[in-house]
Amino acid sequence: MTLPAAAMMDVALDEARAGLAEGGIPIGAALFTADGVLLGRGRNRRVQRGDPSLHAEVDAFRAAGRQRDYRSTVMVTTLAPCWYCSGLVRQFNIGSLLVGESRTFTGGHDWLAANGISVTVLDDERCATMMAAFIAEHPDLWHEDIGLAP
Amino acid sequence: MTLPAAAMMDVALDEARAGLAEGGIPIGAALFTADGVLLGRGRNRRVQRGDPSLHAEVDAFRAAGRQRDYRSTVMVTTLAPCWYCSGLVRQFNIGSLLVGESRTFTGGHDWLAANGISVTVLDDERCATMMAAFIAEHPDLWHEDIGLAP
Repeated sequence: MTLPAAAMMDVALDEARAGLAEGGIPIGAALFTADGVLLGRGRNRRVQRGDPSLHAEVDAFRAAGRQRDYRSTVMVTTLAPCWYCSGLVRQFNIGSLLVGESRTFTGGHDWLAANGISVTVLDDERCATMMAAFIAEHPDLWHEDIGLAP
Repeated sequence: MTLPAAAMMDVALDEARAGLAEGGIPIGAALFTADGVLLGRGRNRRVQRGDPSLHAEVDAFRAAGRQRDYRSTVMVTTLAPCWYCSGLVRQFNIGSLLVGESRTFTGGHDWLAANGISVTVLDDERCATMMAAFIAEHPDLWHEDIGLAP
């Protein structure tokens, strides 16, 4: 990667912070080419748009528009991807996944690694602290976002 | 299920046909309650909206809006769900999956069954014929939709 992992994570983190400022769930993501060119960036918009399908990774993927080949792209996300977003990465053959942290949540990133995707977990303190604080303050909203019924 | 499987599949098939008429990829889906109440319906809108994230199941899930408990819901789709849409079903604990056909494509429905989701494949001739004809006519578009690079 031409762009350092930390610089790519900063873009995703900016998205997460923007989401938090809007009253949303603070998870951000971005899709880059292998050379570090930004294709799309996004954030969780469940609250902002009343849209449960817009997890951060999906929003970034959507923002990148139609692409013909994802094999050399890098999906960057502040939080370990859930099964929905892990399935996105696998189906579209996104080559690499860069995860901010998986302390507060773990979905399918090990499954992705087992299926040939290059997975890196930064264990970024900023991502973990923000997410842990959000979950402590808004457990119901967080559970809704990951499909955990009351 | 109060509503017969065939009646639920008809809703998804109507969506697929509407997509075909719009010049889109003919895959339709719908989300129902266990009692057969329609929560949301949708179709693949890659072509129509230039949005690669709108697979049919995601579009139907989105149309259903924010829900707190999916455990008794039924996701109905004309075509076996890809990994992206299978991940959606798993993450949100959607209880049942009703598939039109898996002859032309297979993603993660066996994986879902192994993870406790009730999966039924109707092998509906109408779904299979429409999809096979579309793939034969538009192989590039189809491959783009499932992330298969040239």
